[in-house]
Amino acid sequence: MSLPAGIFINGVTGEVPDANEHYIKTIGELRGLYRDVTAFDTYLRDCGDGPAYAVAGYRQADSDIIFGTTTMQPGKIGDEYFMTRGHYHVRRDCGEVYYTQSGHGVLLLQTREGETREVTMAPGVCAFIPPDWAHRSVNTGPEPLVFAWFCQATAGHDYGDILSHGMRKLAVERADTLAIVANPGF
Amino acid sequence: MSLPAGIFINGVTGEVPDANEHYIKTIGELRGLYRDVTAFDTYLRDCGDGPAYAVAGYRQADSDIIFGTTTMQPGKIGDEYFMTRGHYHVRRDCGEVYYTQSGHGVLLLQTREGETREVTMAPGVCAFIPPDWAHRSVNTGPEPLVFAWFCQATAGHDYGDILSHGMRKLAVERADTLAIVANPGF
Repeated sequence: MSLPAGIFINGVTGEVPDANEHYIKTIGELRGLYRDVTAFDTYLRDCGDGPAYAVAGYRQADSDIIFGTTTMQPGKIGDEYFMTRGHYHVRRDCGEVYYTQSGHGVLLLQTREGETREVTMAPGVCAFIPPDWAHRSVNTGPEPLVFAWFCQATAGHDYGDILSHGMRKLAVERADTLAIVANPGF
Repeated sequence: MSLPAGIFINGVTGEVPDANEHYIKTIGELRGLYRDVTAFDTYLRDCGDGPAYAVAGYRQADSDIIFGTTTMQPGKIGDEYFMTRGHYHVRRDCGEVYYTQSGHGVLLLQTREGETREVTMAPGVCAFIPPDWAHRSVNTGPEPLVFAWFCQATAGHDYGDILSHGMRKLAVERADTLAIVANPGF
């Protein structure tokens, strides 16, 4: 049986000492995510591989709600800011909430029908992700982007579509500032 | 169709400017919640009626997840700290997460079978509420207690059982400090 618990979230580092699910994605594992393959290889050669983002989650077996944090390092590959893979949920009736704790970014969203939206990620902002909108977070600032996420335990992650086709919009740096542009490769 | 949105939460005041659901409970509306009826009447006579706690929620029609804030004023009636009414969810498979933003308190929880637990509420702590555990928040500090909550949109609130019988444990002040004691009236 699930028992009540108090789970501390460090909103600056994203650490969740009592998390029971963890994974890290390194830059090197994200080959293919970025448009500029040369910039990607140059980055790895010059900077070496390292964590791009880390996820810590808290789940109890018979609970309907799970939560955790995602901590994204700052950086760019070519003109594209560091980003997550992006995913739909397996359960198309499941949305999510991303509550930014520190740092600055943008959440790219799209439907299967081709609609797109962006939500600014900044401390104190809960990004509401409706059911069946794919979502990818992008760290557009110089500091780690840390957000807490909350969704149904059975939502599930479906990365395939976004990994195969990318997203319709890119979050890129243009003249030292964020620009949301159409993805020419989509 | 639900659309993505960025919803700002003020973690100090609990205000959610874009919330679309609101209610306030005044002290006067909470007659019967506190054990010490004389202290309750004295409080109302001397201090007047006023907000005990305020709830702001954000809901989109076809979303599975809702969220919002609860902002609890500090105070006591007799030796009992200000508290919420406390509730089970109508859907017994639905839990919840209370993420404390500011202030200090305690979350009292109990099952229908008589098990009880307490979770300390402090900034950065996500209180995990398993399905079918009744929960009541108590502001044990001198400042407002502000927490963000996240649950399924269809969880529903069932206040009846706790309003009729109270909770098995009370959060009271003893020698200037918090004590969790058995409720002699349960």
